[in-house]
Amino acid sequence: MSTLTNRQILLASRPAGEPTVDNFKLVETPVPELQDGQVLVRHHYLSLDPYMRGRMNEGKSYAQPQPLGEVMIGGTVGEVVQSRNPNFQVGDKVVGMGGWQEYAVVDAHQRGVLQKVDTTHIPLSAYLGAVGMPGVTAWYGLVKIIEPKAGETVVVSAASGAVGGVVGQLAKVRGCRAVGIAGGPDKCRYVVEELGFDACIDYKQHRDVRSLASALKEACPDGIDGYFENVGGMMLDAVLLRMNAFARIALCGMISGYNGEPIPLQNPQLLLVNRVKLQGFIVSEHMDVWPEALKELGTLVATGKLKYRESIAQGIESAPEAFIGLLKGRNFGKQLVKLI
Amino acid sequence: MSTLTNRQILLASRPAGEPTVDNFKLVETPVPELQDGQVLVRHHYLSLDPYMRGRMNEGKSYAQPQPLGEVMIGGTVGEVVQSRNPNFQVGDKVVGMGGWQEYAVVDAHQRGVLQKVDTTHIPLSAYLGAVGMPGVTAWYGLVKIIEPKAGETVVVSAASGAVGGVVGQLAKVRGCRAVGIAGGPDKCRYVVEELGFDACIDYKQHRDVRSLASALKEACPDGIDGYFENVGGMMLDAVLLRMNAFARIALCGMISGYNGEPIPLQNPQLLLVNRVKLQGFIVSEHMDVWPEALKELGTLVATGKLKYRESIAQGIESAPEAFIGLLKGRNFGKQLVKLI
Repeated sequence: MSTLTNRQILLASRPAGEPTVDNFKLVETPVPELQDGQVLVRHHYLSLDPYMRGRMNEGKSYAQPQPLGEVMIGGTVGEVVQSRNPNFQVGDKVVGMGGWQEYAVVDAHQRGVLQKVDTTHIPLSAYLGAVGMPGVTAWYGLVKIIEPKAGETVVVSAASGAVGGVVGQLAKVRGCRAVGIAGGPDKCRYVVEELGFDACIDYKQHRDVRSLASALKEACPDGIDGYFENVGGMMLDAVLLRMNAFARIALCGMISGYNGEPIPLQNPQLLLVNRVKLQGFIVSEHMDVWPEALKELGTLVATGKLKYRESIAQGIESAPEAFIGLLKGRNFGKQLVKLI
Repeated sequence: MSTLTNRQILLASRPAGEPTVDNFKLVETPVPELQDGQVLVRHHYLSLDPYMRGRMNEGKSYAQPQPLGEVMIGGTVGEVVQSRNPNFQVGDKVVGMGGWQEYAVVDAHQRGVLQKVDTTHIPLSAYLGAVGMPGVTAWYGLVKIIEPKAGETVVVSAASGAVGGVVGQLAKVRGCRAVGIAGGPDKCRYVVEELGFDACIDYKQHRDVRSLASALKEACPDGIDGYFENVGGMMLDAVLLRMNAFARIALCGMISGYNGEPIPLQNPQLLLVNRVKLQGFIVSEHMDVWPEALKELGTLVATGKLKYRESIAQGIESAPEAFIGLLKGRNFGKQLVKLI
C-alpha cells in the first residue's frame, strides 16, 4: 500500500470581524497507517455551513471553539478506502464529521461518528444537505417549534439556502402558505418557481424595516403564524410587525450578526403583545428526532418532491473562499466543496 | 329604596407618553334600578394594574382599547347590596371586573362575570392580588412557561410587586433559588426578609447593563435558568448575559416601555446561543389553569405561607394619582383603592 498524502485546511488565526483567507492554512500530511477499529474515508464532498463562523471565535458560544492549528471541523461524505473495522467495507458510502480535508481516519467503533448511507435513490451529496444536518434543522424548527397548522402562513429567511429551502417545502407539504425572504431576483424566482413557495421577498429591494414590513404585509395577507429565522436584524424586526397572536419563531441562526455587527431587536414588546413563543435551538442537541426527520426528508428527496440546489466549489484549496462567500450570501443553495 | 349615587372615573383623553390626572374624569351618576338577573355590587376595593396603561392607548394591542368617555376597566371586590338574581344574596362577597367606580350593576347570569368568594380564611382584598389575577399571572408564567426544577435559579423583575412577589415565593416552594430585582433598598429588604427570596438587586444602584449583569452574576452564582419579566429594557439585556443554556423567559410585562419609550433588546443573539425559550402570555387567555392555580395560591395565603403587601389609596377620587404612581413604581406591593 503506497503512502497517501492528505491535504487539510487548518484554522491559522481567529478573525476580527469578517473572516479572510489568511485565517486558514493549507497543509499536506501523510495519511497514517490504520489502527484496529479504524477506517480511512476518502471525502467526496465537504459541507460548508454558517455555524462554522461561530466556531472560529474564541469565547462562549454553544459549542467549544475550533482550536487553532487544527483541521477545521465540518460534515463530509465519502467512501471507505481502507478498513480495519468489521462494520465497514471498502466501497461503503459514509457520512461523518471528517473536517476540511481530503481523507479522514475515523475511529469507527464509536457509535454515530460514521454512518453508512444508501445512494441508490439519494445522491451522496444530499446527505450533507436536505437529507442531512441542514434538512433536519429545517424539520426540527418547523415541526417541533413552529408546529404549523394547515392554512397558516410560515415565513423563512435565507429561503434559497440549504435550510430555508427545506423549511418552505415542508410547510407546503403541511398545507401552509410558505413565504421566503432571499437576496436578489434570481434566488427569489428559484424559491417560488422551483421550490414552490407561494411568494418570496427580495430583501435587497428594501432598505428599511418599514419597507420590508410592507412587502411582508402584501405577501402575507393573513399575517404570519410561524417564522423560521436564519438571519436576524432587520428581518426579525419586520416580521414581528406582521405576526399574528400566538405566533411561533424558530430561532436557528442570526447570520447578520456573525461578524460581531450589532443587531438589536427594536420592538421586543411585540413578542408580548402578540403572545409570541420564540425558541432558540441547535439541531445536534435533538438527536432523538433525527430518525423521524430523515425518514420524511429521505422519502421526499427520493421521490423528487423535495428540491434543492447546490453550489459546488472544486478542490480543498477552494474551501476558504467558498466559505467566505457563503457568509456573504454568494452561494445559491447548499454550499459544498467537491474533493474528487 | 332610596336612590344611590355612584361615583365613576372615565377615560377622558388618551395620554401622549406618561398619563396625567387630566386623562381621567370623575363623574356622579344615579345607580339605576336593577333588571331581572342583575345584582348591584358595592365595591370595597378597586385593583390598579400595569396592563391598564396599554388599554389607554388607541391601536393594536392584545385587547380592545378602553373606549373614551366610559368607566375605566378594572378588577374589583365588594359586596352584593341588591339582587334580582337567585344565585346571589345580599351580603355575598364577590370579585369581578366592576371598573373604576363605587357601584356596579352586573348581569350576573353571564358565566364568570361575578364570582362569590370565601373570606373566612382569605381577606377580601387578596382576591385582587395573590389569590386573584396577579397571583394566577405569577403562577402561570412560573409553572407553565418557566417550569422550574428544584435547584434552578429563577429571577423576577418588579419583585416587590403583586405579581413578582408571588413568583419568587412559588419558586422557593419548588426548591429554587429566587432572586428579585426591585427599586430601592426598602423594597429589596422586604423581598428578602419578608418574602423569603434568596437575594434582591436594587436596580437603582445600577446605571448600565454591565453593572446590573455583574450584580446578577454575584446573586446567581450558578447562572439563571428562569426569568419572569415584568419590566423589559436594561433588565432583560442584563439577565440575558447571565442565562444558562435552555433557560426560559416568561414575558409578562414590559412596563419600561409602556409610555412609548424605545426599549430595544441589545443582543438577541443570546437567545440563540443559549437556546432560550421566550414566551409572551396574558393570563386571561388561560382560564383553564385558574382553578389549579387558585387552589395552590388560596391554600398558601390561608396558611400564611404566601406573603404580600398592599398599597392602599383611599377613595375613588384618588385612583388616577395612585395609578400614575404605580406606573412609576411608587407603590409597594399590590396597589389598591379602598372605596368604603
